[in-house]
This record gives sequence, C-alpha cells and structure tokens, in this order.
Amino acid sequence: MDYLETISELSRRTPSKILMLVLDGLGGLPVKELGGKTELEAARSPNMDKLARVGALGLHDPIGTGITPGSGPAHFGLFGYDALEWNMGRGVLETLGIGFDLKEGDVAVRTNFCTLDGKGVITDRRAGRIPTSECARLCDMLDKKIKLPGIKTFVRPVRDYRGAVVLRAKGLGANVDDTDPQVVGKKPLTAAGKDAASRKTAKLLNEVVKQTNRIIKNEKPANGMLLRGISSYKKYPSFEDIYKLRAACIAVYPMYRGVSRLVGMDLVGQPETLAEEISVLKDAWDDYDFFFLHFKYTDSKGEDGDAPGKVKEVEKFDKQLPKILKLKPDVVIITGDHSTPTQLKSHSWHPVPLLLAGPSLRADTGKKFGETECAAGSLGRIKATGIMPLAMAHANKLLKFGA
Amino acid sequence: MDYLETISELSRRTPSKILMLVLDGLGGLPVKELGGKTELEAARSPNMDKLARVGALGLHDPIGTGITPGSGPAHFGLFGYDALEWNMGRGVLETLGIGFDLKEGDVAVRTNFCTLDGKGVITDRRAGRIPTSECARLCDMLDKKIKLPGIKTFVRPVRDYRGAVVLRAKGLGANVDDTDPQVVGKKPLTAAGKDAASRKTAKLLNEVVKQTNRIIKNEKPANGMLLRGISSYKKYPSFEDIYKLRAACIAVYPMYRGVSRLVGMDLVGQPETLAEEISVLKDAWDDYDFFFLHFKYTDSKGEDGDAPGKVKEVEKFDKQLPKILKLKPDVVIITGDHSTPTQLKSHSWHPVPLLLAGPSLRADTGKKFGETECAAGSLGRIKATGIMPLAMAHANKLLKFGA
Repeated sequence: MDYLETISELSRRTPSKILMLVLDGLGGLPVKELGGKTELEAARSPNMDKLARVGALGLHDPIGTGITPGSGPAHFGLFGYDALEWNMGRGVLETLGIGFDLKEGDVAVRTNFCTLDGKGVITDRRAGRIPTSECARLCDMLDKKIKLPGIKTFVRPVRDYRGAVVLRAKGLGANVDDTDPQVVGKKPLTAAGKDAASRKTAKLLNEVVKQTNRIIKNEKPANGMLLRGISSYKKYPSFEDIYKLRAACIAVYPMYRGVSRLVGMDLVGQPETLAEEISVLKDAWDDYDFFFLHFKYTDSKGEDGDAPGKVKEVEKFDKQLPKILKLKPDVVIITGDHSTPTQLKSHSWHPVPLLLAGPSLRADTGKKFGETECAAGSLGRIKATGIMPLAMAHANKLLKFGA
Repeated sequence: MDYLETISELSRRTPSKILMLVLDGLGGLPVKELGGKTELEAARSPNMDKLARVGALGLHDPIGTGITPGSGPAHFGLFGYDALEWNMGRGVLETLGIGFDLKEGDVAVRTNFCTLDGKGVITDRRAGRIPTSECARLCDMLDKKIKLPGIKTFVRPVRDYRGAVVLRAKGLGANVDDTDPQVVGKKPLTAAGKDAASRKTAKLLNEVVKQTNRIIKNEKPANGMLLRGISSYKKYPSFEDIYKLRAACIAVYPMYRGVSRLVGMDLVGQPETLAEEISVLKDAWDDYDFFFLHFKYTDSKGEDGDAPGKVKEVEKFDKQLPKILKLKPDVVIITGDHSTPTQLKSHSWHPVPLLLAGPSLRADTGKKFGETECAAGSLGRIKATGIMPLAMAHANKLLKFGA
C-alpha cells in the first residue's frame, strides 16, 4: 500500500482547521548586497519570526533532491501527491483554473496568441500582450467558428494573451510536443504525436491552428496561435477522499487554482490582491477545514532577479500575517512551493524553508524564519509529500497505523 | 530491485555483533514541569550520554512522516521491513509470540475473556483481569472441546485474560473486523467477512464463539470471548535470509516476541524483568550475531501520562547499560520503536531519538542523548528501515553495491 493510500485510510474528520500559506518561490541563496543573507533572512518579518519561535522549522524537497520543480508538480508535492507519480500537464491545470468543467479523457491545451508576418513567421510570441478583454473577444469568435467533424472543441480565454483549447472525443492521446518554438523569427512548429492516439490529437490540433489562422488572419496584433502544455485530464483522488478535508483554494492565478481544483478544492472568490485573498479567507473560514492561500510575488521578483524587491514582498506578506492568524487556525504551515533564487532568475532545486505551528511540537531553537535556521530545525529535511500528513497529525486528524 | 532485496544481496556473514536496544515509546515532547525538557532529556543518564559523545545521533520515522505507528509496524520498521509493504495483524504476532507454530495460511485471533450478563451483554471486557493460570485452564478446556467439522482449531493462553485462537484450513480469508465493541453495556459483535474467503472465516469464528459461550457459561467471571486482530499468517524473509544474521530476541511481552519470530529471530529465554533480560543476553552472547533487547516501561509510563515515571524508567535502563556494554558489541543502537509523549498518553508520529555507536562514525556534536540533540545529529532524520542497513555497514557486514 502506498503512503497516500495509507494516509487516506488513517484520516478522519475533526473540527480542527489547517492553514497552508504558500509564498511562491520562497527559497533563496545568500545575496552579497544583503550581507550574505537570503531575501527571507534579510526581510524584517517579525510576525513570521514570532511564529518560528513557537513553531518548528525544517526544509522540504518538493519532488526529490536536486530536482527543480515546475509550479504544477511543486504544488502537487505540497498537497501530498508525489509528483513523480501524480503529474498533470499545464494545459489541464490552466483550464481547470479558469473553472472549465473538464471531463475524463479531454485534451486541454494552453494557447498563446501571437503575431505572424505575411510569411507566417512569428514576430511577437505574445501578440503585444493583448489585454484579457481582447483575448476573450477572439476566443469567443474561435469557439463559435472552429468546427472539427464529430469532435467537440472549446476555446476559452485565460489571461492577457493566453487562452485554452479543449478537444472532447474518445481515444485522444496527449503525447504531443508544444508548437511554440520559444523564439521569434521562426514559424510555429507543426504538432506531432508520439503514438497512435497522440497522432490523432496532433492532426486535430493542426486543423484547429489552420482554422484559427484563417479566422483571425485580419486581426491585429493577434493573428496566430501557439500551442503549449498539451495534456489529457484524468480524475485525481480528492482532498475529501484522502484527508476528509473540505478544502478551499484562495489564489489569484489560474495555474494554482487549477492544481487545487484537480485535487478537489473549492475555488473560493476571485481575489486579485493579497488583501482580497485575506478577505476571501475570512468569509470562507467557517465553511472549510483546510485553506490553501497562494502568494505569487516572491516568485515574480525571484524570476526578475530583484533581491530587494523579493525582500519587500516577504515584508508585505509578513505585515498581513496577523490578520490571517486572528482566525485562529489550529495548524499553520508557511512555506514555498520551490526556491527561486534571484541569482538564478528561475526556479531551483534548493530545498524550501518550512514553518509549522500548532499543538504537540518539539522544541526548536529557531528564532527567525530563514533558510539557515530551517536547515537546523527540528523538522529536519523532509519530502514535500510529508507536509500534509504532518499537518494532519498535529491537527489530530490521523489515526494510528496498525495495532 | 527494492531496498531490502538489495541489502540481502550485499550482506555477508562476519564475526561482528550488533546490539539493538529498544526503549519502547522513547520519544517525547517538551514537558513544562521538567523545565521544557523531554523525559529523555531530563533523565540522569550518564551511560547513554557517554555513548552519545562517542556515537552519532539522529531521528527516525518508523513508518513515514506524520504517521503514528502501532507497535507491530513500528518494530517491522526497526527490523528493516517497510511496514507499508510488510505488515501483519496482531493475532498472528501474539500467537507467534507465545511460541505457537503457525503454518502458512493459518488464521490467528487474539481473544479476550470477558464477563457477560444473563442477556449476553458485556459487563467487563477483561473478565476481572483473571490470572494467566485461570486463562490457561479455560483455554485448555476450550482447546479440547471446540469442534469444527473438517477444520483444526487451537485455543491457547497468552497472558492474564488474553488468549489466542487459530483456525487451520485452506482458503481462509482474514478480512474480518473485531467482535470487541470496545465498551461495556453492549453485546459482542458478530464477525463479518468482507470477501468470500473472509466470510468463510467469519462463519467459523462465530461458531467458535457460540461453542465457547456454551462451554464456559457457568464459569466466573470469564464466561464469554471477544475476538480481535484477526489475521492470516504468511512467511516473511528472515533475518538470516536478508542480513545473514543469527538473531536473538530478548523481550518480555508476546507482541514483540511475535514480530521477532516472524522475521526469524530465536526467542531466547523467558525473561520477566530487565535484570533477567540482561542475564539471558549474557548467556546467549556467543551463539548469535544480532540481539534485539526490548524494554517496555518507557512506553507504559508514556501511556499513563506519567512524566516523572518515564524519566525514572529511562534512568533505570541507563543504570543497567554498563552491564550490557561489557559484552563489547561492535555496533550498538539505542532507540525507540515510536514516540509516546506523556502529554498525549498515546503513541505519536514524532520522529524517534536514535543513537548509533560503533566504528567509522562521523563527528557529532551530541553530548546528551535527547530529542533536541538528535534533531541536530549527524545521522539526520532517516526512515526506520535505514537503521539496520546502517548498523550492518558499521559492523562491516555490507559489500559494495555495483563495481
């Protein structure tokens, strides 16, 4: 029996509440201009530090030692699903994230509107970052006009220049590479399937692109479409199935909302800022046992290579923390989905700072929430998939294994 | 190839000796009245501390992060068998623990003698805790008188009011819930199987109970029988198979003797106290390569919520340690099978203090054997299944993996 199955057999419903606060890309590396501290260590974060003093610290590996995770697999890890076994393409995640009702076997694709020149060569991979309203107008048009014989197709806007295409039919594979060549000055690639079922999908997608290019050829600047994250949807065991938790996702971006929806969380509210997220959290507090609140901007600053900016985002979050803690969750987790060191301007493999507060904790010498103290923390270095069981145990929601 | 299989391919017989000392339920949480120390930290234990200074410290998770283990699975972990894969019901473990010779496919059941009123309602789940001698008299009677057509049945005493029933026949399942309702004022439940083979077993067990109730209906106070831990026996790969170790179990209680026997250890002696255990250990020293010595009372005090009592049990054990170490084992492990914090009065999920002494150790800053120093120890936080391979390696009993 595997770990997740075991947890599902041991879990029980209780009135206690678990709150998981995820600061995206939280982990960092020592920064020279910050006196050798990481952004998290350099930040003035009295509220997280206070929690660190009463709580326990550690580090987690989202997927496995040395593996740099994408956002999807990183969140699966946090939610207790080993991403080496449970992974799902970005097409499915974004499509779920906009609330689209995927059915088992649907193939979902992220699309970028792009600008093509007269010869079909890409001159802008993001079509001048058209606004969401323009994206919605084009998607509505495509949704009505694209016709594939015997197959349902859906075209939906996501955000800015990004949309989603869904194919609904039996026996579609999803082993199909992106058609986005990742650079301007080239033509979009042709979709190609790697097995019989995926070749069927590729053929249909190439037809979708052909019809799209005809339908929007006179639009400006968005007159072409690139396909990414081609993936097929299957049902996952839900948070309710595994943990007996009524779970709420509070997140701004479709990607994180999608992962949450895949594991059966309710998408609560449509917040656009941290303040709105906290307000949504308050309103939902009585209706759920588990809350996942996602804060994006630590990662964004990491990707920008902006160390002082990342420090500020940590401080911004910390300032709001007392409002969140006023709700009196029984167990609080503060962590990241992965590290995003500003030096690397990208996700990295470094283990992620982890703070756990709640009843029945071991003594911990941690005084400040940061990478160095986390490395010496009493939680040690654990796999991300251990975080949910740990939170469940401290919330008194897990029965004993065996007699 | 899995980990245990790999270890079995690498292991070799050498003259070195490994000693595993298990203080049941050893791990704890900070106790206010002990100045924020755990019982292990508060105990005056100069002998273990001396070993901690020359040895290496760490923590182990018996089953997995967040999982609270029962005694059976916890010991499987210590012996290197991942309990998520290798687990065995308590009926089998107790029956093996009393030395009964189970055959592959036997169904073994723990039984409690209980007291029933005139309407068959339970008034005492333990029949006034009758002594073992009385239990033996009743079991002998039942063993002779119970008859099931075409099926061998055995009834054996275990300890106090507890006994064991074994059914020997082909095709018996063991997916059958306990008949003990866990409270007085109710009638015993009827055994019910969850699949065809288990329904066959349930029917037989209900007949055993029916005959028992008739046979002992005029006895006092034990005039009824409750069934628990219904499980079926299969052979495990043994310590000899895997580690090439002639292994000895020195334990007082049938449960721990049962797990040991399941993995092919010899049950040495019939000790009733720690002093007797040590005397048995001395006598057996020349005949074995591996010794598992089990000390029960740290767990008992944990379950009682008696922090000063748990401190005393640690000190009692520590006082005897020099006598044990005089035997000059090459590698010594001191640990628990799980944590039993006095605050929780039950087993818990907290990782367990681990001390390893022997040749080829890394430097370690540990000066005192306790949870906090173990969290900072050089062994880190490992799965329990890593302890045996580690001990084997330090005892120079494991060959290199690959060229």
